[in-house]
Amino acid sequence: MSRSPRKPRKEARRRLPHDGRHLVPGARAVTELLRASPGRVLQVWTEEGRDFPDLFALAAACGVACAPRPRDELEGLVGPGLARGVVAAAESPLLEGVEPLLAVLDDTPATVPSGRRVLLALDGVVDPHNLGALLRSAEFFGASGAFWARDRSAPLSPVAVRASAGASERLPVAQVTNLSRALALCLQHDVWTVGTVVDGGTPLRSLVRGELPDRLVLVMGSEGRGLRRLTRDRCEYLARIDGGGQVGSLNVSAAAAVALSMLA
Amino acid sequence: MSRSPRKPRKEARRRLPHDGRHLVPGARAVTELLRASPGRVLQVWTEEGRDFPDLFALAAACGVACAPRPRDELEGLVGPGLARGVVAAAESPLLEGVEPLLAVLDDTPATVPSGRRVLLALDGVVDPHNLGALLRSAEFFGASGAFWARDRSAPLSPVAVRASAGASERLPVAQVTNLSRALALCLQHDVWTVGTVVDGGTPLRSLVRGELPDRLVLVMGSEGRGLRRLTRDRCEYLARIDGGGQVGSLNVSAAAAVALSMLA
Repeated sequence: MSRSPRKPRKEARRRLPHDGRHLVPGARAVTELLRASPGRVLQVWTEEGRDFPDLFALAAACGVACAPRPRDELEGLVGPGLARGVVAAAESPLLEGVEPLLAVLDDTPATVPSGRRVLLALDGVVDPHNLGALLRSAEFFGASGAFWARDRSAPLSPVAVRASAGASERLPVAQVTNLSRALALCLQHDVWTVGTVVDGGTPLRSLVRGELPDRLVLVMGSEGRGLRRLTRDRCEYLARIDGGGQVGSLNVSAAAAVALSMLA
Repeated sequence: MSRSPRKPRKEARRRLPHDGRHLVPGARAVTELLRASPGRVLQVWTEEGRDFPDLFALAAACGVACAPRPRDELEGLVGPGLARGVVAAAESPLLEGVEPLLAVLDDTPATVPSGRRVLLALDGVVDPHNLGALLRSAEFFGASGAFWARDRSAPLSPVAVRASAGASERLPVAQVTNLSRALALCLQHDVWTVGTVVDGGTPLRSLVRGELPDRLVLVMGSEGRGLRRLTRDRCEYLARIDGGGQVGSLNVSAAAAVALSMLA
């Protein structure tokens, strides 16, 4: 807690190298993608014989080609039940390392009443539905971005993209090699870490009423085991969410939504 | 808003008739079931050759038989990936009508700092993962119960039970024939309805700081369309959750978790 904060370096965003396999299913997510990052879109495919007039107009305005494909082919690309008639292939939105997110945090004004700017970090979330829901909530509550370690984490798959309702294409997202080192880098840049725990810690409600800094990383642990010890040791604050019931914990995406709403 | 509240009738809980097909997958949910309602359990099956010492001891203490079964048979009962070695067959936890939940609300003290007592109502939630997550959050934040209409809603399937982490077996839950009539009955019993909306309404944060009654039903709409008009017309309060982002809405289970935390 005694390391002196330094100004973040403003780096150009470095995109991960990609194999053209970031696939975005569904009209809603593809619309978000076209609105937020038209330059990343390689191709949009729509189901043969179906009309998506708003999407076709948006794609045309972005200079993106829409090609008809059989329904089976679209489902085969992204998995059953996800496409609902539309799939886009795009460059991955994943940035490399936490530095570009710190630059976003510096460059964008807070949009929440508290004036805080928040990054969301995920320590081993493995369910792509949870990953998507977490990104959706982060975007909803005005977070500056989200990041997670490359290993032992859910990929940004079509399931995750769909569960995010397209927020994965709009929110700045990054993969890091080592979460603990990324959190240390955040602190050097005057962004303090709040880890969420089920037992121990301080009620988040109390922390929020107290002296919490206005530049934060909120870290959520994995579905089964919560925060790893190494991650926990990196946190400047440990916070828990209190309920009045008898079951011990919330789902990770419910807990994140509650925590993000309290920090907003 | 001018109808005078009446005292709820204290009725005996009426369980729905069942066909013995309420199936509870996974050691965690079965443990919750045995702890909360041992009298509902008909049978516990565990995977041949696997040992669950805590569960076996708990089942024995409850006088419930545990029988070994092949893994395939357990998976076949509840669907792939859900059993993880344990399935219980039980009487359904579903109560009939909202009256038994109103009796619970009257009979149990509030367990949250606000002193409020809250029921959760669902208006057409169709995804069993969402249903489970909603029940888990309701239980976590000390709700007195949850109810939904029999039609056009997700069933309390093994997927929902598992997603609830067993909260479905502990939280009082009920099915009603007509949601709108059930909400009218709540008001007659001095339990006021707060419907959540994406557009319009009052920020829930402001409502909570104001004159909100301490006996409430929180109503969440369906994943795609939100509250139906009939339901919306029944609400004494319409509340929205404000974020700072650019995407319009939260997932229904994230929104419910945030709303329940604000009411707690």
